Order: sequence, then structure tokens, then C-alpha cells
Amino acid sequence: MQARLAGAQVDALLVSDLVNLRYLTGFTGSNGLCVVAPGLRRFVTDFRYVERAVDEVLDFDRERAPAELLAALGEGWPAGVRRLGFEDDKLTVRRHARLRALVPDAVELVPAGGLVEAERALKDEAELKVMAAAAGLADQALDQAIAAGLTGRSEREVALAYEDAVRALGATPAFPTIVAAGVNGASPHAALGDEPIPRGVLVTIDFGARLDGYHSDCTRTYASGEVGEDLREIYELVRRAQAAALAAVRPGPEGRAVDAVARELIAAAGHAEHFGHGLGHGVGLEVHESPRLATTGEDPLRAGNVVTVEPGVYVPGLGGVRIEDLVVVTADGCRVLSGHAKDLAAL
Amino acid sequence: MQARLAGAQVDALLVSDLVNLRYLTGFTGSNGLCVVAPGLRRFVTDFRYVERAVDEVLDFDRERAPAELLAALGEGWPAGVRRLGFEDDKLTVRRHARLRALVPDAVELVPAGGLVEAERALKDEAELKVMAAAAGLADQALDQAIAAGLTGRSEREVALAYEDAVRALGATPAFPTIVAAGVNGASPHAALGDEPIPRGVLVTIDFGARLDGYHSDCTRTYASGEVGEDLREIYELVRRAQAAALAAVRPGPEGRAVDAVARELIAAAGHAEHFGHGLGHGVGLEVHESPRLATTGEDPLRAGNVVTVEPGVYVPGLGGVRIEDLVVVTADGCRVLSGHAKDLAAL
Repeated sequence: MQARLAGAQVDALLVSDLVNLRYLTGFTGSNGLCVVAPGLRRFVTDFRYVERAVDEVLDFDRERAPAELLAALGEGWPAGVRRLGFEDDKLTVRRHARLRALVPDAVELVPAGGLVEAERALKDEAELKVMAAAAGLADQALDQAIAAGLTGRSEREVALAYEDAVRALGATPAFPTIVAAGVNGASPHAALGDEPIPRGVLVTIDFGARLDGYHSDCTRTYASGEVGEDLREIYELVRRAQAAALAAVRPGPEGRAVDAVARELIAAAGHAEHFGHGLGHGVGLEVHESPRLATTGEDPLRAGNVVTVEPGVYVPGLGGVRIEDLVVVTADGCRVLSGHAKDLAAL
Repeated sequence: MQARLAGAQVDALLVSDLVNLRYLTGFTGSNGLCVVAPGLRRFVTDFRYVERAVDEVLDFDRERAPAELLAALGEGWPAGVRRLGFEDDKLTVRRHARLRALVPDAVELVPAGGLVEAERALKDEAELKVMAAAAGLADQALDQAIAAGLTGRSEREVALAYEDAVRALGATPAFPTIVAAGVNGASPHAALGDEPIPRGVLVTIDFGARLDGYHSDCTRTYASGEVGEDLREIYELVRRAQAAALAAVRPGPEGRAVDAVARELIAAAGHAEHFGHGLGHGVGLEVHESPRLATTGEDPLRAGNVVTVEPGVYVPGLGGVRIEDLVVVTADGCRVLSGHAKDLAAL
């Protein structure tokens, strides 16, 4: 982080985003901030979390503040801090104005969002271990949830069975589980239905687990019994696009270059307008984080990134397919953390 | 809302906060915005939610935008909108700068946070019905969770039993359930422990349910068998403070006036420094919303507000007590939605 502060030409960084704060300090409460600089590690929380911070926040000077934490910064401003970076992509206009009023006039406030996120995008071994465990646990929970098949059960029933299984295994769902059958599958983020899933449709299940603060994210598409040629065709198209994209994941290319591999393959099959989202995204303490694999993704992939690779084809009135793996970018390619098979299985 | 826009001297309001967006439009997806003005109801979402918006967002002109929704505002700016209000307490510094670059130079951006929140604070009959149902469901789930007693079970076990019961009843937990036993109870927001709850301590359980987007929030403190005189004394103190505060809830007084009723009673008993949080907060589509019952709460209570009344006393090294009801402010007082008894029960 010291190098990142220097690169952004700031003397210190105010971190108010709770996920970034957890990453830097270990704090898991819902109200806190820190200021970091070479030789400065100041942590502030309110009354409710003082005791928790004693356990979690070990390497910082801890202060208790009123519920409006910024007020604590008004006092004892460190003399050497003339340029204070702040998370311009997280701090609201109102809190920024308050910060301006609180710190000495001579201090310049410098937009510096993304510094901690850039560091978070590079996972260390301990983080990778937790994420692999989360992915494995999610796979196991999905096995249990679909063991009774899909036909005749409702989307909600399958989703709740998955979420119950995740909890029984000691984690929590990473996000509201998506189960989208038949024409609902044409909507990438469909809400859960209560009608029985009919025979002969595709069913997309997007599921994840959260363990020790870290997330997994995986999608599989199944068939409820035999499906028609049109559906099998888009399934195989997405499967090929996903395999091609996985083969392109390695340190070096920008996110948009990997996105393009899948996107061009899908476009060549005449389905360009049916793949309306990005190919993937970083995952970690948040379900969506850096780097992005999308037409706008300019960050080059680096070893230690954990990203999803999830092309999809969504045909209104017919159905949809999405196949998603969670992968670690390694020195020479990638390692897939998602374990479920990708042949079209009839359940 | 038209009157509120006029009061804030803006021609239109950009709503980007997802909870405010849901309140105004019915949209439940994770990416959207709207612009409202007399005669203007413009709603924007991305590819993923276009189909859901057809079902949910009925009274707006719907548009599909790229993932960066603000870009949609760059086109077709309505001629009459010269002063555009934005949610300065929600919009980030970076998005504000982007908005500034996108809308015509002649348009003035006016900080106008809180307008939708002020409307949300006044619940109508349909909202009150859902919230009463959520509170009743949470009570029922707690009954099930504590039916087996507390002594010998872990905090985590009791919390998960509650959350499982909530789900089985068709809702979801409103927030991570707090179960804090013995000295952990001295921390108002303690993390869950895995050790068996011993006999003879106080156990604070803070629990809620989310139903159709609306939340309930309630806290009870129980004894695991017979407890000592020191603990009974703080229990009775909090109980009296809570009753006094409930008696003060009615349309008219500012939040801080009601807070003061409980705070002064607790201070008179020598525990001023052991009640470090506000007396309560509004509840609705969010667990914490307007109005605030706290030393800083300047909004007068109004009929239709739904607030918590939750004094607490937390004595480090000894234990803590919090008693919280969810109440509706009525024309002449308040109606308590929380049903559990408040006599100190030994479980």
C-alpha cells in the first residue's frame, strides 16, 4: 500500500469503505474508518464496536468516536499529511463536504479510489485457500440441492434447498441464489418462481458461498429431461465459448481481450445480441470486484487474480444458458476452482 | 413527492439509491435509476433487468442503458429541467463528477438527499400491515428458537435456529441475528460465539424478519437460569427506561426529546456511560432509516412513523441488557408491534 500511496501522490489515505477497511484492518463491524500512511495507522469506530475492534484490529491505534466517525479526524491532524487521498468512488458528496469542513484548510483532498481494491485483486495463498474451500463447499451444497432432480419442483424450492445446504455446511449464501427455468432463463437475473419446473426446459442455477468473508460464484445450466435441438445448440455454443475463454485466461491480456474471445465466438454463431453482459468479474471479499472481464475491462490480468468466466446466451421466449467457473489466474494460465461437470446433464 | 421537489426548489430529482428507487418505482433489481418531475417519470436499467422491469416498473417510461446507467441521461435532456436534485448523501463523488460531465452545462446540480427518505418515513396502511406481519413472524420464529432453552447451547446455535425458523415461515432474517451472553452482552453488537452459554447469565437476542422488502427489529434479554442481584438491577432499570420512552412516543416531540426520557432515567441510576447508542431509529425498507431517536435527532415524530425504542445498559466485565420494541406512531401515542413479554424470563 505504501507504494500505491506514493504512486497516487498522496501522503495518507482515508479508507471509509467497509470492505476495504476489513481488508486493511480485519474489522468486521458496520461503522469504522482508518487513515493509513507510512508510520500512521489510525482506526476509528463507535461505541458499539469498541470491544470487537480490540479483538480484530491489532496493528492500529484505535479510537472511539461519536456515530459520525469523520468528526474524529478534526482533532490531532498529523503535521506531515498535506495531501489526503479519499475513496472518490465510495465517499458520498455529503460526507466529502463534511470531511472538507473538518480537516485543516491546508490539507488537499485528492480523489484516490481503487487503491485498496487494486491490492485486493491480488490474492495471497491464504485467501486462495479460503476461496477454494468456499467453491468446494458450494459445489457440495448444489449436489445436495439437485439430488432430488429439478422437474416438478419450483425455482424457489431448489434455491432454498441450496441455501439451507450451504448453511448446514457452515457457510452462508454468497448472494441470492438464481434458479431460472424455461423462458425465465432468458432473463440473466430472473426472480424466483413458485410454479413447478416443467419437463424439457433448461434450468440455470447461479450459486455461491461466503466463507470467512470471501465469496465463490458459479453457474451451471441443466436440462429437466430431454430438451429440443434449439436449446441443445445454444448450450453447446456457450460451452464452447466458455472453454475458449478459459484457454485465454493468463497473466498479460486486458480483461476486454479475454471477453472478446467468447463474445466473437458467440457473435459468429449469430447470437451477438443475446450476450448482453460482461464475460466475468473479479471475486473476493465482494462478489463483484476488480478486475473486470468485459468490453470495458482495461486492467491486464495478473497472477493471483480470481475471476469468473461466465458467457451466456439468452433468447427471449425460448430460454437461456450461462456456464460460469471461478478461476485463479496462475503464472502460466488458470486453475479452475469450480468442480461441477459441464456436459449438459438431464435432471 | 411533487411538493417535496418544490420545497427543495428543484425541477426534477435523480434517484440512484436502490432502496429509494424501489420505493418510487417498485424495481427490485440491483442496477437502476429514475428521474422524476411533474409530468416526467423516466426509469433506466441495464440488460439484465429489462424483463424484470417490465413486470415491476409500471408507471414509468423504461429505457435500457449500458451498465453505466448515468450515460443514458446524456441523451434527450428534458428542456424544462434546469435545476436537477441529486441524492448528495448517496451519490459518490466520482458519480457526481460523471453526472456533471453528462448533463448539459446549463443544468444546475442541487444537493437534495433525503426527499424520498422523508416520504418513506410515513408508512401507509399497506406498509404497516406488512411490517406488523414481519414482526409477528419474527416473534413466532424466536419462540421456536428458544423453546429448547438457552443454557448449554451456543450463541451461534440459537441464532441459526432463529434464522432457520424465519425462513421456514416464508421470510428472511432482517439482519445478522445477535445473541450475546454473559460478558459478551456488554458489547451491543457482539459477534456470535461457539461456547456453551453458561447458567446464570443474561442473554441479549436482537432479531428481525424481512418480508416483501420491509423489516422488523426487536430485542429481548433473557436469563439463563437464576441471575445475581446486580444483573437483575440493570434489567429492571432498562425495563423502566423502555416503558418511560414508550410512554413519550407520540406525534410532536423531536427524536432527541424521546431519547432524553430514557437517557436521563438511566443516567439518574448512575449508568450514563453504559448507554452509548441512540434510543431508536426508523424501520421500513431499511433496518435503519428516518426518523432517529437519538441525542442528535431533530425530526419531530409524526403519525405513521415506525421506530424502535431500545434503551440498553452495557457494563464491561459484567454483562448487558437491551429491550427493544418496534412501534407505530399513532395519532395519540404509539402501537407496539413486538409481541414478546418483557418480564425477565429464565430459560
